[in-house]
Amino acid sequence: MTDLGQKARTAARQLALVPGPAKDAALRGAAAALRAQAESIKAANAKDMAAGEAKGLTKALLDRLLLNDVRIEGMAAGLEVVAELPDPVGRVLAEWDRPNGLRIQRVAVPLGVIGIIYESRPNVTADAAALCLKSGNAAILRGGSESYHSSQAIMAALRAGIEAVGLPQDAVQMVPTTDRAAVGEMLTMTDYIDVIVPRGGKSLVERVARESRIPLFQHLEGICHTYVDGAADSDMARKLVLNAKMRRTGICGATETLLVDAQAQALLPVLVRDLLEAGCEVRGDAATQAVDPRVVPATDEDWRTEYLDAIISVKVVDGVQAAVDHINANGSHHTEAIVTEDPAAAETFLNGCDSAIVCWNASTQFADGGEFGMGAEIGISTGRMHARGPVGVEQLCTFKYKVLGSGQTRPG
Amino acid sequence: MTDLGQKARTAARQLALVPGPAKDAALRGAAAALRAQAESIKAANAKDMAAGEAKGLTKALLDRLLLNDVRIEGMAAGLEVVAELPDPVGRVLAEWDRPNGLRIQRVAVPLGVIGIIYESRPNVTADAAALCLKSGNAAILRGGSESYHSSQAIMAALRAGIEAVGLPQDAVQMVPTTDRAAVGEMLTMTDYIDVIVPRGGKSLVERVARESRIPLFQHLEGICHTYVDGAADSDMARKLVLNAKMRRTGICGATETLLVDAQAQALLPVLVRDLLEAGCEVRGDAATQAVDPRVVPATDEDWRTEYLDAIISVKVVDGVQAAVDHINANGSHHTEAIVTEDPAAAETFLNGCDSAIVCWNASTQFADGGEFGMGAEIGISTGRMHARGPVGVEQLCTFKYKVLGSGQTRPG
Repeated sequence: MTDLGQKARTAARQLALVPGPAKDAALRGAAAALRAQAESIKAANAKDMAAGEAKGLTKALLDRLLLNDVRIEGMAAGLEVVAELPDPVGRVLAEWDRPNGLRIQRVAVPLGVIGIIYESRPNVTADAAALCLKSGNAAILRGGSESYHSSQAIMAALRAGIEAVGLPQDAVQMVPTTDRAAVGEMLTMTDYIDVIVPRGGKSLVERVARESRIPLFQHLEGICHTYVDGAADSDMARKLVLNAKMRRTGICGATETLLVDAQAQALLPVLVRDLLEAGCEVRGDAATQAVDPRVVPATDEDWRTEYLDAIISVKVVDGVQAAVDHINANGSHHTEAIVTEDPAAAETFLNGCDSAIVCWNASTQFADGGEFGMGAEIGISTGRMHARGPVGVEQLCTFKYKVLGSGQTRPG
Repeated sequence: MTDLGQKARTAARQLALVPGPAKDAALRGAAAALRAQAESIKAANAKDMAAGEAKGLTKALLDRLLLNDVRIEGMAAGLEVVAELPDPVGRVLAEWDRPNGLRIQRVAVPLGVIGIIYESRPNVTADAAALCLKSGNAAILRGGSESYHSSQAIMAALRAGIEAVGLPQDAVQMVPTTDRAAVGEMLTMTDYIDVIVPRGGKSLVERVARESRIPLFQHLEGICHTYVDGAADSDMARKLVLNAKMRRTGICGATETLLVDAQAQALLPVLVRDLLEAGCEVRGDAATQAVDPRVVPATDEDWRTEYLDAIISVKVVDGVQAAVDHINANGSHHTEAIVTEDPAAAETFLNGCDSAIVCWNASTQFADGGEFGMGAEIGISTGRMHARGPVGVEQLCTFKYKVLGSGQTRPG
């Protein structure tokens, strides 16, 4: 592992100085290599699929694991999309002059070496490597054991493509073992890894958070709320609630709890009926149970549960401040939305909710780097340090200060 | 400690919403209270001084500990300086529109609760509390045992001043014990503290880095370099080297190693003589030893030592890339300077040095929040995450995204 770390650090020093067009050529080269090596990638994937079936993985997990021509093309196209993004490195984030004539510039530079620990989806290998490369970072990837052969084959293609254009192939490396202890070792390599990105279920993220000596981009869960205010437009409220919950129930930006202002209680029956008719289980407080016999009683646990499924908890609250208090006490600091025509209520909500993303008259499902215009994201951070919300290529950078003088000495 | 944490979290939620002028009034109120309570602060300090003398603290430590009218006025004036800074909270850091009509704003918000662990200087109590309050953060301070009574008395004044203008006095709290175990507990309070700032010597910072489960603004040491390039102006080089090393030898931005380009070796004798004549011990490589009999041989350890004293290590290197390589291998990612008239050499140096601050024709002693125009700093971060370089009130903020819509749902 130390050898891996040293190679990554060396590659990172080189990559930090590589101009944008060369990185983009490497990304396109990697895309071409993925296409050229599709047969060997599918052969490797077949091994993982056979092992997965023998192990009795669920159909859903096997589907996540599967690579076919369409999915390989998807990965390759994804690399080309990242190549099209503007270079995040070297941007002058701020500059100013001091009275003594010094010019000070804050300039974006890569973070260094990024460790990515993920589970079964093999496509993360290509997606994460691309974002790291674009932002001038070296990547050390540690995929799940189920997708080991697939990820290795993808990695071989990426490295071949990168090397073909003259960049260091150690820009992306994969931990060459599925031994769980390797993760523990990775999490203590403070000299060689600058940030860890865990991508996977709650237990993986919790383990990484517990053991890591390295800073994290962390996303534990998305317990997202939509609050329908007394001053909401009723048609808009119906449309937004349905979309926020039901468009995709398995993504982290899906609403898990609906809060309805007591002043909007007239809307409650139709909001609940819409959800029930869309196939959503509704777990409600007493007021919500009263509007429809199909509503199931919500327990205290429901207010703190990320269902990732067609289930919603519904509660009547006494105004916007009560909604904010409920969210700050029970939520996960991810994404919350208010539906209202009242700018004052919106302001209270947007400022009061201590969450990475706060929406006014928009669906919580917009919590996504692509929807934000960032091109692609490596995850959504619910932490407060460095990156918060979608983590795209700009968030994979840090900065340095350049102090430009003409011989100034500091007096005194 | 949990009680302290809960109070801090509650205060932080309130403070995050307080407008700038109210925070500034609290800072001025705290300054007034410090002046009004000067007698009780001095009485508390007398207890610490007596205990320190009994304990046999060095003169230097006792001087750090001492509070008199001038120093109390200095603390009060410092609070007023912070009050004059622009409010860092609520700044729109970026905003853009999406094709679907969504407007996205990235808005600065406080980090939350900041834990500050420091050693003997009691004035840190006021300085750190002021920066936290200005940036809308609650602070939990844990001072050294030597300054315990002094810090308590300062804290009492600050809290009285804050409460007098109607803000929550728990905006600043002090750990009410000098028990070392309290630090350990503080470092695991992930629910209540968002970031830890260790301020003190290397052993304190290392302990905090080792034990903390909470992200840090960390500054281990400042092994800063000045590199005199072959294309340097010789007068400028002499002036800058002397200032970078000798203006103040005890600050983290002081140059500890001088690298001289082999092409500039004609300058070496005068650079060395200037330093020796200014009272600086010079530890050199073979080439440096050859220019003056007073030069002491440098050991490998010297290249990795922060002297914080009138000692410098000097080495001849073969061009700018060799200087960069030496710095990246031996430095502490703090501050480095190049002296050159050659823009290409400067570019290689500024981009190649993996340090928070890189200077061209300017003294490394400018590594300071005040000199950068930030007003005041809580420290200089050599870490890569979130804040790098001087940590002022803007760096004590994070951000949230506001997504402003008119009923948009996410398609697909």
